[in-house]
Amino acid sequence: MKPHRVTMLGTGLIGDFYTNTLHSSRAPDRVEVVYSRTEERAEAFRQRWGIPHATTSVAEAISHQDTDVVVVGLPNHFHEEAVALACATGKAVLCTKPLGRNATEAKRILDMTEEAGIFAGYLEDLAYTPKSRKAVAAVREGAIGDVTWVRSREAHPGPHSAWFWDAEQAGGGAIVDLGCHCIEVVRLFVGKENRPLQVMAWMDTLVHPIRAEDNAVVLIRFESGALGQVEVSWTFRGGMDLRDEIAGTEGTIWLNHFLRTGLEIYSAGGEAGYVAEKSESSAGWLFPVGDEVAELGYAAMFSDMFDALETGRAPQETFYDGYVVNAVMDAAFRSAASGKWEPVEMEWRGGETARIKKTAATHDGHDVVKEEILPDGRRKLILADQATGAIFDEVVGPGTG
Amino acid sequence: MKPHRVTMLGTGLIGDFYTNTLHSSRAPDRVEVVYSRTEERAEAFRQRWGIPHATTSVAEAISHQDTDVVVVGLPNHFHEEAVALACATGKAVLCTKPLGRNATEAKRILDMTEEAGIFAGYLEDLAYTPKSRKAVAAVREGAIGDVTWVRSREAHPGPHSAWFWDAEQAGGGAIVDLGCHCIEVVRLFVGKENRPLQVMAWMDTLVHPIRAEDNAVVLIRFESGALGQVEVSWTFRGGMDLRDEIAGTEGTIWLNHFLRTGLEIYSAGGEAGYVAEKSESSAGWLFPVGDEVAELGYAAMFSDMFDALETGRAPQETFYDGYVVNAVMDAAFRSAASGKWEPVEMEWRGGETARIKKTAATHDGHDVVKEEILPDGRRKLILADQATGAIFDEVVGPGTG
Amino acid sequence: MKPHRVTMLGTGLIGDFYTNTLHSSRAPDRVEVVYSRTEERAEAFRQRWGIPHATTSVAEAISHQDTDVVVVGLPNHFHEEAVALACATGKAVLCTKPLGRNATEAKRILDMTEEAGIFAGYLEDLAYTPKSRKAVAAVREGAIGDVTWVRSREAHPGPHSAWFWDAEQAGGGAIVDLGCHCIEVVRLFVGKENRPLQVMAWMDTLVHPIRAEDNAVVLIRFESGALGQVEVSWTFRGGMDLRDEIAGTEGTIWLNHFLRTGLEIYSAGGEAGYVAEKSESSAGWLFPVGDEVAELGYAAMFSDMFDALETGRAPQETFYDGYVVNAVMDAAFRSAASGKWEPVEMEWRGGETARIKKTAATHDGHDVVKEEILPDGRRKLILADQATGAIFDEVVGPGTG
Amino acid sequence: MKPHRVTMLGTGLIGDFYTNTLHSSRAPDRVEVVYSRTEERAEAFRQRWGIPHATTSVAEAISHQDTDVVVVGLPNHFHEEAVALACATGKAVLCTKPLGRNATEAKRILDMTEEAGIFAGYLEDLAYTPKSRKAVAAVREGAIGDVTWVRSREAHPGPHSAWFWDAEQAGGGAIVDLGCHCIEVVRLFVGKENRPLQVMAWMDTLVHPIRAEDNAVVLIRFESGALGQVEVSWTFRGGMDLRDEIAGTEGTIWLNHFLRTGLEIYSAGGEAGYVAEKSESSAGWLFPVGDEVAELGYAAMFSDMFDALETGRAPQETFYDGYVVNAVMDAAFRSAASGKWEPVEMEWRGGETARIKKTAATHDGHDVVKEEILPDGRRKLILADQATGAIFDEVVGPGTG
Repeated sequence: MKPHRVTMLGTGLIGDFYTNTLHSSRAPDRVEVVYSRTEERAEAFRQRWGIPHATTSVAEAISHQDTDVVVVGLPNHFHEEAVALACATGKAVLCTKPLGRNATEAKRILDMTEEAGIFAGYLEDLAYTPKSRKAVAAVREGAIGDVTWVRSREAHPGPHSAWFWDAEQAGGGAIVDLGCHCIEVVRLFVGKENRPLQVMAWMDTLVHPIRAEDNAVVLIRFESGALGQVEVSWTFRGGMDLRDEIAGTEGTIWLNHFLRTGLEIYSAGGEAGYVAEKSESSAGWLFPVGDEVAELGYAAMFSDMFDALETGRAPQETFYDGYVVNAVMDAAFRSAASGKWEPVEMEWRGGETARIKKTAATHDGHDVVKEEILPDGRRKLILADQATGAIFDEVVGPGTG
Repeated sequence: MKPHRVTMLGTGLIGDFYTNTLHSSRAPDRVEVVYSRTEERAEAFRQRWGIPHATTSVAEAISHQDTDVVVVGLPNHFHEEAVALACATGKAVLCTKPLGRNATEAKRILDMTEEAGIFAGYLEDLAYTPKSRKAVAAVREGAIGDVTWVRSREAHPGPHSAWFWDAEQAGGGAIVDLGCHCIEVVRLFVGKENRPLQVMAWMDTLVHPIRAEDNAVVLIRFESGALGQVEVSWTFRGGMDLRDEIAGTEGTIWLNHFLRTGLEIYSAGGEAGYVAEKSESSAGWLFPVGDEVAELGYAAMFSDMFDALETGRAPQETFYDGYVVNAVMDAAFRSAASGKWEPVEMEWRGGETARIKKTAATHDGHDVVKEEILPDGRRKLILADQATGAIFDEVVGPGTG
Repeated sequence: MKPHRVTMLGTGLIGDFYTNTLHSSRAPDRVEVVYSRTEERAEAFRQRWGIPHATTSVAEAISHQDTDVVVVGLPNHFHEEAVALACATGKAVLCTKPLGRNATEAKRILDMTEEAGIFAGYLEDLAYTPKSRKAVAAVREGAIGDVTWVRSREAHPGPHSAWFWDAEQAGGGAIVDLGCHCIEVVRLFVGKENRPLQVMAWMDTLVHPIRAEDNAVVLIRFESGALGQVEVSWTFRGGMDLRDEIAGTEGTIWLNHFLRTGLEIYSAGGEAGYVAEKSESSAGWLFPVGDEVAELGYAAMFSDMFDALETGRAPQETFYDGYVVNAVMDAAFRSAASGKWEPVEMEWRGGETARIKKTAATHDGHDVVKEEILPDGRRKLILADQATGAIFDEVVGPGTG
Repeated sequence: MKPHRVTMLGTGLIGDFYTNTLHSSRAPDRVEVVYSRTEERAEAFRQRWGIPHATTSVAEAISHQDTDVVVVGLPNHFHEEAVALACATGKAVLCTKPLGRNATEAKRILDMTEEAGIFAGYLEDLAYTPKSRKAVAAVREGAIGDVTWVRSREAHPGPHSAWFWDAEQAGGGAIVDLGCHCIEVVRLFVGKENRPLQVMAWMDTLVHPIRAEDNAVVLIRFESGALGQVEVSWTFRGGMDLRDEIAGTEGTIWLNHFLRTGLEIYSAGGEAGYVAEKSESSAGWLFPVGDEVAELGYAAMFSDMFDALETGRAPQETFYDGYVVNAVMDAAFRSAASGKWEPVEMEWRGGETARIKKTAATHDGHDVVKEEILPDGRRKLILADQATGAIFDEVVGPGTG
């Protein structure tokens, strides 16, 4: 295992999360250089996390001789420039979500890393939560049969920095901020080789005095027939709602990453007030998680990235994944404008996926829709005529095929 | 309080639920006559519930001299005829959901009762669950501010009688069977006076060997800007998934009517096997509800109907409501065919509803998007320029407006 | 079904619950006369519930010619006198919990009704909650095998009337107020024919400035070997904690009657504030129940009482049950004083109960403690020597007994 | 950060858990030598985890030149000998729970490490779960006021190795296996400086063909007045029940470490069957955790141990803690035999703890038991006479003290 030295670009909330994840572990990887646009923020961050160097020069930060990995934790409109600088150094680059503000930008970012031949990892933490990993493994082992529907939802009262709210800088509103997470989670469960064909989106600005959407629902039709259902909101009240639901032909999975994870605190408040993270209040019933950087996937994400880097394999989440997510979001914005299903336009590398299996039993040449056991032991069959589609009952003796 | 004597049309699962509700209560209302197409079923039902009369003549059942209320619990394609017969008698008529197979049929049913001047109640039980009633009351009292989004979901492995699966007889598949519930639940929370303007629907037949849809998602745009999100499935595994979620500008409501209501049983099974209702299995973790006819709203529904009948007021759920639900479902089918938002076409009696309130605080002529308190007591404001929409930060002293 | 006319003694919280239950139903039973010690309270109650008569004379209320049922909803130290007056009239008497302040008083109350030959019902509502009834039925059907352990817990921040807090008037503190519920719930699950043999109790006054106990844990050993575990508190924060857990040789049951029943509301509060019942606050996450009089068992309790009265059978909860509960509580107080297990002293009418079945499989004359399948298909047996009790492993081939 | 090389003693389930924790992390610490009594098991373990050396000599394993830390993961009756050997080497020693089979043995183990002056850590993983750590921090910050009651429960269907079931080798049954966890968890929440004074225990062998207890409840009175309530069972059905509840004067905490943590899977099973760990079945509703070694505290436990070792501080869990736990268990066994509260006999190093604060407001020289606001704005006070303890109501105007 090789210790990595990291250039951290950006000192916002995500920079804190990333650095906290790296520095709170016995793993040997540490941030060596931090960059911020302002000296005050760079220096404060440096001291907060015990980082050797701070700078306001992004080029200097990226090319610093002591680091081998560049983490891009900047606002969306700075991703392309930062990745370009990293490409020139040949260092590994890890970029926060979304990869670009749109698929065109994301494709340029993807292309430049492939041309430079550098290691590139897409920092989609929610694709790495402990529950998601366990659940994806269960799906792969056949626990729920073929996946038919995935709901992924992320909602909270809105982000902390100004640029998120500005569609120019961010590329959009809640869809770009939160939907990118949900789209990739949906892909994990339907299978990354399952092509997203079409998108239908609703979006609106219902509450905040902004121009970007603060609420959206995005439906995605995959090649297998499965439906992805993405729900995002910047107007949710009560904390951070982070849930996924997966339906399959043979089972169901429900994931709740926050608010209802088995840790429940009622506090009368008192003088000082106890503040749980992601909570809107300091009293009443509060629902924190146990270990936030683990529960939100940051810990497993960096482990995967560094292990992939060392062993020469691709990480679970690549820049190509980030590009696909951007392409789906682009289709969502087009659909919101056109009011109809829009195709997902992108370069597809994922192969083909067969339609969900539909293999009904038959009885006397008819499809069996449903079978029930009657109290007297006979079986009631609901049958469908294969030619006409007409449906009818038939009661048969026990054991008869 | 006047005891009612009921003509029950239909001996399927819903007839059992209705009669169980009436006969298991100390309320004085009882079924007096039951009708089924076959004598065997009529007689079995009569004996099961201790009903005085059984008949295979629907006309005879409806006009029976001992009854004052006719309950239509027949397959969808028989609703219109049954209601027409009831109109001729002047008796009160209560019709199960959906009112018709489509809005045109529902409108004829509505019109004939209005012309006959008889009492007509729409038996939408899920609009009466104890949790829904408590939650709707909370919304009316302002607990969550303006409603912005309502998710209503009903999913199970599919219905028990053949006619449900046949789009000809039923009018459609899972949307008509389950979606009618969800649409009315959405209306309860956004407000019945809030006009459903447009509908966007995804539907597919993913698992069962039928022609009707076995899975669907329906989005409904209301005049206030609120979004209704209806999810139905006949392929869900694990029991009956019956949940609603409501988001408002000032709060959130989550309702779970089945599977997670505080009653959890693990049974190793053993020889006999213990069977919980609506469960797919007789062993493992089971999640029944306490009192099913109460939890699913049947008890409160009949109380409302009979009380309304006695006091001369309209019941909470009317045939007009059933007609609106049919109109929304019609738009869903049109949308599934056209791939775009479709208008809800109907005669609207509900008035107008204002847009969700969006009243931002201002600072120096800018809209306040978000306000945070910094560790040093100063406030960080995220501001939006009202003219350009540009977003920026500003740090101000404590207490400054 | 015969409508009953009720004399309601007492206008406290329990009188409101009882009357609300009776008057909010289509069942024909109504309160006809209400008694309170003060005219102001009697008249206010009369108007609140639309009751024909109010009086400050308990004798007049009980003997009123229009009533056939007397409900005793008075403070504990008035139960005996009220029941004695009811005995003289021959009317049915229903008495709230606990029956007496101690077993001696409860026995006198029991005896006088048996001598008078009147119908006597013990109003233990929590023995009638929908979840308890469903769970008890599951236990009776063998869903969890033999019951080994029952936890019943009731906790809230303390009662609303002064007399509850005064051990002289109430007979004790939290044990008498809340423990009486839990003890009877435990009996329902271990079986009422299962004799409570010994009791061990911890109690303390930890928070409130009173002399009665505000927290207690009571352990009860039953003849079958099952353990009852009763937990009560008047110092719980966060609402009303009302949970039961049942362990059996073949399964497990968890009941949650309040706070986590599938109805969850987050309210930011706002100007008016939304108040959910039994909640300590009007904002934040709130967990009300759907229909309180149903969920807490009041509705089913009165149905059982009136049905029993009409059909001449005993109700589920009798004065004898109330007496047994008092006897267990007496033993708890003795144990708290002596620091050791104390016998339950009472006249036992419940017969005998066999010890929990312990039927191990055997292998070569040894008891099989546990069996596991190894990856290679062989079975690992953990065996106990029947003579010495020594435990050891043995790996055997597949299929070998 | 210094990489540690570990001698792992024992190849049972706990050895697998420990090694999995160390080897699945990017932290640099690895197992270098493994010891088992049989060569077959030692070699299989070595290969399973990629460990350089395996041996059947415990002395050789402990004195191996490449290791600096000895982890004792052996059956209870081998702890003392193993620690003694480690003392001779001067290496750090980490011992699994319980420290000894009784307090006398535990004291000898504690003493020998103190005499040898070596680093000694007590591997009590459940004192390190992410939820426990977050909850303990909340308690320390005052979120729930003074702790009054802690329930800690661990229950499952019984352990996997023969020696656990044999009281001679293990020192007892479920209390020694599971109760040691719960006792330490209780201590974490009431405060380790809070002396356990007396213990009252119920235990019985209800189901398994063994002589040790398979079910027990242990009550612990602490110096502050707080009650610890420990529940253990080897006969639980449905998975692993691992919950804690903490009540305080100002709040409540509920922890659920397994079975209900936000990950819920329904699997119809199918041919292969999907097996979730700690589940009794491979179909139906299953409730695994996301990342087991994190959720059960193993990851944070080893981090604390190694960090403490490097910085020269004591770890959170010490051999003294293990000794206190053994002393409480000894008192539990004495109480089960005597039927009364038994003192905890031990050398106490924890100082003194004040009684839970009981500071009532006063009104006219009386203690205020409860205060309620009446609809007309006046306040109803429930008051206690400080001299006589008599309780009475008083209604006062708004704002009056």
